[in-house]
This record gives sequence, structure tokens and C-alpha cells, in this order.
Amino acid sequence: MSHQLVLLRHGESIWNLENLFTGWTDVDLSEAGKEEAREAGRLFKEQGYEFDICYTSYLKRAIHTLNFALEKMDAEWLPVIKAWQLNERHYGTLQGLNKSQTAEKYGEEQVRIWRRSFDVQPPSLEPQDERNPAHQKAYQNVAENQLPLAESLKDTIARVIPYFDKQIRPQLLAGKRVLITAHGNSLRALVMYLEHLSQQEIVELNLATGIPLVYSLNDNLSVIGKQFLGNPDVIAAKMKMVANQGKTKTIERL
Amino acid sequence: MSHQLVLLRHGESIWNLENLFTGWTDVDLSEAGKEEAREAGRLFKEQGYEFDICYTSYLKRAIHTLNFALEKMDAEWLPVIKAWQLNERHYGTLQGLNKSQTAEKYGEEQVRIWRRSFDVQPPSLEPQDERNPAHQKAYQNVAENQLPLAESLKDTIARVIPYFDKQIRPQLLAGKRVLITAHGNSLRALVMYLEHLSQQEIVELNLATGIPLVYSLNDNLSVIGKQFLGNPDVIAAKMKMVANQGKTKTIERL
Repeated sequence: MSHQLVLLRHGESIWNLENLFTGWTDVDLSEAGKEEAREAGRLFKEQGYEFDICYTSYLKRAIHTLNFALEKMDAEWLPVIKAWQLNERHYGTLQGLNKSQTAEKYGEEQVRIWRRSFDVQPPSLEPQDERNPAHQKAYQNVAENQLPLAESLKDTIARVIPYFDKQIRPQLLAGKRVLITAHGNSLRALVMYLEHLSQQEIVELNLATGIPLVYSLNDNLSVIGKQFLGNPDVIAAKMKMVANQGKTKTIERL
Repeated sequence: MSHQLVLLRHGESIWNLENLFTGWTDVDLSEAGKEEAREAGRLFKEQGYEFDICYTSYLKRAIHTLNFALEKMDAEWLPVIKAWQLNERHYGTLQGLNKSQTAEKYGEEQVRIWRRSFDVQPPSLEPQDERNPAHQKAYQNVAENQLPLAESLKDTIARVIPYFDKQIRPQLLAGKRVLITAHGNSLRALVMYLEHLSQQEIVELNLATGIPLVYSLNDNLSVIGKQFLGNPDVIAAKMKMVANQGKTKTIERL
């Protein structure tokens, strides 16, 4: 029996537009990002994809991406589970800073390390910082020692994968078709896990926004099929754009 | 210990505007209805109301009302449970018909009986009718003998209350603050139950759209406090509008 799992990275956010580090900052989609989400929904409908259960993060750019996609599928009645464990990587004190200015201040090499190393954290928030998730209502039921003040990709993986194993794996094995709408780094965690990628491979992998990634998995949740949905030219252009972002002053969205 | 339960009837839908019987037809909010939903969210935020869990129906006019309200509260991360049992009363073959034309065809008295009796069903859908919920994806996991082809208010109550008792009551007793965003008749069922109203009292009760009804309940879920949120003049005007609708050709929204 094969199991269907679809990953969808949220569309462009307003802070992507302003070139700011986002992380757990709860910013909305830009108009272009909303349209990317609707287009994903249109693709699902057009190509006959259906789901039994959906997962998303606590962050509105992922929640809205899911809402727009489900609206276009006429499937807003589907159960949706929100989990903070699917949030974007926490970017510590970089959150809210302009990426170009940060590169000028700390050097491009330091920023590249924060962004593209596997296990280096950016500078941590002070506990009293208002950006500390422990001070926010959304996380009031989460034990404070589980909440990050900054994360490496490795730290993000360490919260995403246990959640996936405990909550999502049983749904897949029960035959449920699952859609996860989340973030560049929380989805990287899942891709690394499902595709058995190395640390080097995963830091070099960039998922395009709004392009559904469809997996067929066997009963061990090993990948037996993988495809991106959509117009191949659009997908190729988005992949190229993502690949080039790292080479310019406009540093890739995080 | 007192328990907080808030009921919110969805805002105006596009079929309200066109004066059609709606029932389980999945029509969206009108622009005015979206604004009613946002205003409810603004009221919650302004007056310091918070929730731990939200319930809504499978119908997008209720789901969107909840989404807009949560967006205005900055609380979209809250868990939301969707339940078909909270759907509007099923209006059988009347669904999709113009209310004035139906009154001309069957007589205003007959329409009044269908709308305002406690236990008279409107004409039932034929099982093969495409409007039969059993033919719709949203209800594919519900046993066909549980799905209605037409409902009296009594029938609606008979599905709403067991759901409330089994799913929502334990949440309230566990101290969770609950918001239910649903429909005129599914919310009537809850009001009748919580306030111990008679059949006569409940058919005469009309909840205004978009006006939060806040209950404080004791450990037996008996009402120890009740208030409508919002500007008293707006509430009074909406109540008057609802009361007058039954007296004119523009028959009250269903």
C-alpha cells in the first residue's frame, strides 16, 4: 500500500518582500504569497488531489496558505491540526533585522554560516525579550524548556521529527492522505528524514514557495515516488530564483 | 467555578442577499458578512475575551466567520474543530429556492409552518438528489443513516445536543474557554438546551448575526450569566430587524 504525503511551503510573506529575517515572527502573506497559495489549491483540484487531514504551524503565513489552498479545493471542512512544532526555524536576535544590513554588519560569511550551516545557532534572544515565545499567548501551554530562543537547523529537526513520528506517521499508516503546509526549514527537516539526506545535502536543498511536493511512501515511509506539482517552466524558474538568491545581496527568504 | 461559552452566528451570506433558502448549501459570506465577522473579532480583542478551543460547522460561511474573527484577535493558532453536527438545519427541497417565490407558490402560512414550527420538516430531498449530503465528499465518513434529507428544528436539536454533550461539555468542564461559530438553528438548539426554553420559546427566538452571545455557566452548565457583546444600539437594531423580517416578503434568513 502506498501513502500520500504532500508538503507545501507557504507563499511569499510581507517580510520576504522587505528582506527581513522572519523565523517565528508572525507576519502575513504578501498579495503574491496569497496568489501562490490559491494556485496550489487550484493545482490540487485540477489534478484530483484530495486529503483526509491537514497540518500546519502556529504561524499565520502557513495557516493562511492552507486556508487559501483549501478554499480553492472546496475542502475547507477538512480537519486541520496546528502544531508549533512545525514552525519555522527560530532565528534568535536576527528576527526583524534586514538581511542586507545584517550582512554588512557581520559580514556575508557570518550570515551564510548562520543561514546555511547545519548546527550553528544565530545569537539567542535574552529570556526577557518580548520575542521570547514563552511570553506569547500562542505558546502558553508549551513547557518553557521546549521553546527556543534561537535554533540551528539541527534544533529545528529535533522538534519536527518527533512530532511527525508521533502524530503524523500514524495517520499515514492508517491510510490518511496528509497535507502539511509549513516553512522552509521545518519542511527541510521532513525532506531530510524521508529522503535520508546528509547534513550537507539538506543545507543545500531549497524548496520553492507554493510548489506542492508530492511523496508516495511505502509502509516503512520510504519514498517510492516524488514529484513537484505545476507547470514545469514555473517550477524551473522558481528553483533557479531560489538557487540564485544566495549569490546576491537579496538573501534568500528564511 | 464558572465556565465561558460564546456562541457566534455567522454573518450575512450571499444567499441571504439573494433571499434564497440555504440550509446545507455551502455558500460564502457576503462582504457585509465578512465585516460582521471581523467586527466580532475586534470586539473579542477589545473586551479581552480569549478562547482555548473553537468549534464550527462544515459550512464555509461559519468557518470563514471564525477565521475572520480569529484573525482580528491575533489568535489563528487556536485549535479549531469542525463538526457537521453543527451545520445549519437541512432545508430539504427548499434549498436553493427563492423565499418570496416559495411563499407565493405554497402560501405564506405553509412557509411560516416550515420555518417556525418545532417539528415539521420541509419536503425531503430524493435520495438521488445531488444535494443529498451522502453524495458529497465532506460527508463521506458519516454513516448515511445519520445524514438528513430534510430536518425540522427538532431534528437539528437531535444531532447538535449529543455532539455538544459528548465533545464540548468535557472541554468546558476541564476549564477550556469555548467559542462556537455556527448557524441560526444549530445555535438555537444550544440556547434552548442551556436556557431550558420551551418549544414555543425557541421557535420565537432569533439570534442576530455576528453578535457574540457570552454565557457564564456553572459546573452543571446552568446559565449564571448571559450577555450580548457590542454597541447596545447596534444590537437593538439587529434584533429589531430580525423580528421584523418575518412580517414582510423578505423572509428571515435561515
